Amino acid sequence: MSKKILLGIIGAGRIAKVHAKSIYFNIPNAEVKMIADPYLSEEAKIWAAELGISSTSLDYTEILNDHEIDAVLICSSTNTHAKITREAALAGKHIFCEKPIDLDENEIVKTLQAVADAGVQLQVGFNRRFDHNYRALRDAVINKQIGDLHIVNITSRDPGPPPIEYVKVSGGLFMDMTIHDFDMVRFLAGCEVKNVFASGAVLVDKEIGKAGDIDTAIITMEMESGAIAVINNSRSAAYGYDQRAEVFGSKGAAATENDTSNTSVLSTADGITGQKPLNFFLDRYVQAFADEMTSFTTALVNNTPVPVTGRDGLIPVLIAKAALKSLKSGKKEPVNFL
Amino acid sequence: MSKKILLGIIGAGRIAKVHAKSIYFNIPNAEVKMIADPYLSEEAKIWAAELGISSTSLDYTEILNDHEIDAVLICSSTNTHAKITREAALAGKHIFCEKPIDLDENEIVKTLQAVADAGVQLQVGFNRRFDHNYRALRDAVINKQIGDLHIVNITSRDPGPPPIEYVKVSGGLFMDMTIHDFDMVRFLAGCEVKNVFASGAVLVDKEIGKAGDIDTAIITMEMESGAIAVINNSRSAAYGYDQRAEVFGSKGAAATENDTSNTSVLSTADGITGQKPLNFFLDRYVQAFADEMTSFTTALVNNTPVPVTGRDGLIPVLIAKAALKSLKSGKKEPVNFL
Amino acid sequence: MSKKILLGIIGAGRIAKVHAKSIYFNIPNAEVKMIADPYLSEEAKIWAAELGISSTSLDYTEILNDHEIDAVLICSSTNTHAKITREAALAGKHIFCEKPIDLDENEIVKTLQAVADAGVQLQVGFNRRFDHNYRALRDAVINKQIGDLHIVNITSRDPGPPPIEYVKVSGGLFMDMTIHDFDMVRFLAGCEVKNVFASGAVLVDKEIGKAGDIDTAIITMEMESGAIAVINNSRSAAYGYDQRAEVFGSKGAAATENDTSNTSVLSTADGITGQKPLNFFLDRYVQAFADEMTSFTTALVNNTPVPVTGRDGLIPVLIAKAALKSLKSGKKEPVNFL
Amino acid sequence: MSKKILLGIIGAGRIAKVHAKSIYFNIPNAEVKMIADPYLSEEAKIWAAELGISSTSLDYTEILNDHEIDAVLICSSTNTHAKITREAALAGKHIFCEKPIDLDENEIVKTLQAVADAGVQLQVGFNRRFDHNYRALRDAVINKQIGDLHIVNITSRDPGPPPIEYVKVSGGLFMDMTIHDFDMVRFLAGCEVKNVFASGAVLVDKEIGKAGDIDTAIITMEMESGAIAVINNSRSAAYGYDQRAEVFGSKGAAATENDTSNTSVLSTADGITGQKPLNFFLDRYVQAFADEMTSFTTALVNNTPVPVTGRDGLIPVLIAKAALKSLKSGKKEPVNFL
Repeated sequence: MSKKILLGIIGAGRIAKVHAKSIYFNIPNAEVKMIADPYLSEEAKIWAAELGISSTSLDYTEILNDHEIDAVLICSSTNTHAKITREAALAGKHIFCEKPIDLDENEIVKTLQAVADAGVQLQVGFNRRFDHNYRALRDAVINKQIGDLHIVNITSRDPGPPPIEYVKVSGGLFMDMTIHDFDMVRFLAGCEVKNVFASGAVLVDKEIGKAGDIDTAIITMEMESGAIAVINNSRSAAYGYDQRAEVFGSKGAAATENDTSNTSVLSTADGITGQKPLNFFLDRYVQAFADEMTSFTTALVNNTPVPVTGRDGLIPVLIAKAALKSLKSGKKEPVNFL
Repeated sequence: MSKKILLGIIGAGRIAKVHAKSIYFNIPNAEVKMIADPYLSEEAKIWAAELGISSTSLDYTEILNDHEIDAVLICSSTNTHAKITREAALAGKHIFCEKPIDLDENEIVKTLQAVADAGVQLQVGFNRRFDHNYRALRDAVINKQIGDLHIVNITSRDPGPPPIEYVKVSGGLFMDMTIHDFDMVRFLAGCEVKNVFASGAVLVDKEIGKAGDIDTAIITMEMESGAIAVINNSRSAAYGYDQRAEVFGSKGAAATENDTSNTSVLSTADGITGQKPLNFFLDRYVQAFADEMTSFTTALVNNTPVPVTGRDGLIPVLIAKAALKSLKSGKKEPVNFL
Repeated sequence: MSKKILLGIIGAGRIAKVHAKSIYFNIPNAEVKMIADPYLSEEAKIWAAELGISSTSLDYTEILNDHEIDAVLICSSTNTHAKITREAALAGKHIFCEKPIDLDENEIVKTLQAVADAGVQLQVGFNRRFDHNYRALRDAVINKQIGDLHIVNITSRDPGPPPIEYVKVSGGLFMDMTIHDFDMVRFLAGCEVKNVFASGAVLVDKEIGKAGDIDTAIITMEMESGAIAVINNSRSAAYGYDQRAEVFGSKGAAATENDTSNTSVLSTADGITGQKPLNFFLDRYVQAFADEMTSFTTALVNNTPVPVTGRDGLIPVLIAKAALKSLKSGKKEPVNFL
Repeated sequence: MSKKILLGIIGAGRIAKVHAKSIYFNIPNAEVKMIADPYLSEEAKIWAAELGISSTSLDYTEILNDHEIDAVLICSSTNTHAKITREAALAGKHIFCEKPIDLDENEIVKTLQAVADAGVQLQVGFNRRFDHNYRALRDAVINKQIGDLHIVNITSRDPGPPPIEYVKVSGGLFMDMTIHDFDMVRFLAGCEVKNVFASGAVLVDKEIGKAGDIDTAIITMEMESGAIAVINNSRSAAYGYDQRAEVFGSKGAAATENDTSNTSVLSTADGITGQKPLNFFLDRYVQAFADEMTSFTTALVNNTPVPVTGRDGLIPVLIAKAALKSLKSGKKEPVNFL
């Protein structure tokens, strides 16, 4: 492999643009050669050109068949992830795939097998692992600054619910939104979830309930280490994107607050008012997305393992399945490791 | 009843002294006439005298038989609460009883019946309801500043575990420690708990496990309103007494931080370091204890209902029972209202 | 002197009541026997009785002539402080005198001489020295947590200006308000002010300017140690009583924030809003006032020096004089130690 | 002028690299064509190539003589700023010049005249005006969120002193370090400084004193509007680069805290410890430098006035001169506007 990685991006939506920007502005050792999307918009063509992407296509197999391209970023809709990942593996491309690989665990297993057979690398898009705040918590755990881990407490609330049409095909709250938090629990705890108990409610929007989903949840996880983790989720926080966590252990605790656009505080007769959290995941995690992409291309350049593996992509789906089962059974459910 | 309430205190331990102090220094409309304890220490005699208590006894029935005394504070050991409460009711005394009334719900029901039959008032000692921080959260809920309540999130961690001998007779974590948090959930949510799921672990001290108890827990509660509440507990927080809560709803959230002894922050090469939480419940809740006692005596003077009733004393015990049952069954369990 | 100190209070205004309360509720080793005020109100008679003060008078010399009374608290109007202090000294009473002793430094010197001649103790009412936050800063300096002191930075702003009639007789901003901050600079720095430069403006209320005073000021002080101190003052802060300080040195800094009524923070679409400072000096410094009075009575009981001396009462007046001179001359002015 | 601005950078030190990076990664409408430095290092050649700069030179006149180049960034040593600015103006180049233009006000005036005569634009490098935190304060002033401005309070402390050899040629604390704060006072207050009083001390390093400079200062400024501003400076803050400000007015105050690398807080038996400020000006102001450069190139592209003018470069030098004069005279000194 040459020192500069050549990439193809499959899918030209919002997240594709984020990665293209990161690569163009922050990653000297990588370059996007081609972007493909069957519904490639004029707008996408413009930003692709501005971001130094020389070639576009309506057909992603052009990327797979391009022998210069070392790796692909799969940013297409979720229901195509597994199939394209397998095809890319067959074509000998390294793969960065947005989460989740699939909503069906058997489909994921089959895909991971194809990746293993092809001997290519697969990184799954759990961007929050690269966020400065969560990294600080992870470091506090690893460095034993809090001693042995006893409790993980994650607050994860979106500023507002997605469109109801999206909710219907999203795989549900656990698969669509909590899946990031399930990954974070594993990342922070450094061990696997044994049992899951989930409690859910429809409090934000009745339409979400009619679609068979929930919008508010508390999920408890018993970890292999004996620690206990808990996630609280809401599809709608009036004050913005609420992304916080706390790790608590035998020697203390480490906790994060939300990022804000600036540190100013206004004091008036009405109160002492600080800034709201950065409201949009692309703002909140802009640097995390860039660092994620850097980690991927650097692993390819150095021929070292990617930091977030296919198995890291599988397990949160298994936890989500157990959570969904628990929601229905009212019992804690074991994670069914495959 | 005269305008000044005459009180008797039964039990002369730590909490009795707290109440005696509150009354002497803060409550002009009440006076402690007698304190009784079968093991009355010399030290207790001294502080009793300093706090204006004219008479002491080894026999609490002297208090019950004193016709001048309007009301009693039951600060004796937990296993005597129910019996003495019934006797005091029979004697026509109004009653302030420390929590819990009893570890057995049938005993509590029997006691509440006796109180009802006697037509006296009974206030149970859930002091945290009078704390300034929790009051601010309760107000935010009542005044709809956060809209409709969706999530209650309580962090409640002790600075260190009690002696193992105490653990053995305490009724367990849920009955001894979480019971305050169960009460807080009801107080903040303003409605009843329907179902409880509890996850527990022994992470602080193996001796606690050997004694059949847990020291770390996450408890999820589904509320009648549809909201979800979650409590995280530990018997040991290295940085001190950790008492925080958050209420989250359709229009926002309100959250509290710990109280500290001062607001100073030290910035050095080692970091930016603030004060630890007030480390002892008597420091943290000193004003809450005083306000609690004021609320009791004021209700008696004005002949209005006490703010924390016998039923408020019963229900957290029922929740604790359900939590214990859930801990064993691995299922969410309904609260068995009597 | 008996172990219990008997006190007389001269003046029955707001601050007299504060001290009477502190003594009644917090200080077992002291008791107020008599309170005197030529314009004693019915309201004052009522609270005096409630606070255990057995005797009242329109004539403070009754207090001076009462041989049982060990010490007096001089809470009358400023223009009477010096004269009554001297009379009390002559009568052999120990003295607690509210600040300032007088607006005229020669009058103060004469008064301190009378106190010295009588061999009684005199404590001056700089209550902020007993505040938990400022104490933490003082400790950080003394304990060298910040290394050698380089900068003291005090923010001191009142919630609103006093009545214009009061402004006219107050001695001006420096003598009436900044005097507390001058004392605080000495307290925090642990050394004397050499030179003062003052800049002032009339920005809050033009009437204050017409009365010959200023309402906004920055005062810089060069300390004997070489450190530099700066105070910023305003007669009106819309968000409440703003009382903060920072000490900065070779190894770091220590800073305080305002006290608030609770720690709750409300997060809504409008922002993240915390509590305003406690708005009134009696709320903000309630514990400081109590600790101040305890320090006085304890010194008398133990026959040890009072912690804030007559000289501590004199020097801030000398600094205020230098500041006023600087305001007019546009030059830094030396403090004229007498 | 073409839509894409072609730039030359004169000087290839640390700040030149910052600007080259900003342009390469963040500014699509500009490109650096050439960089010149008489002592061009191999390291500089490497980063220049990596940042897309096609051409290097030891002679900056090559840049001035290149007809394709629209504008120059003057990042050479301070003593060459004025001369090169005039030469660039004569060559018809727009100019971005690092602060200060010169240490001598007459030299600056002569230079601004040359710029005016040439009809080119000149922006001076006061990067902090583009910082998110200071912008928030400026907005709070402009939008009258704090009402009329009464007080500006700036804390500006470096993590450590520069080498003593640098100190000797720096022009002194006021010209080298406080000059940013003088600019900030003008930026926040939106009006000019009338009078300056400065107090200074040598507390960090005696060598600085031997070099005729100070390392600690408090500077008070009386503004044209009647407001008062105060700056406190130190050459050494043990906890890092301390960059904060507060604006206070008739309706309230707005204040900023330092930026940190993440929001995590560690709670242990040793205290509650947060992150130190970003320690290096290039970290603290990385985004401000980028936004500064964007503002310059955008003004050129759109042919609109640059946001920080030559006069903005002159006046802080005049304030620094007045401060130095005050330091010696012990009087407040008027700013001598030219």
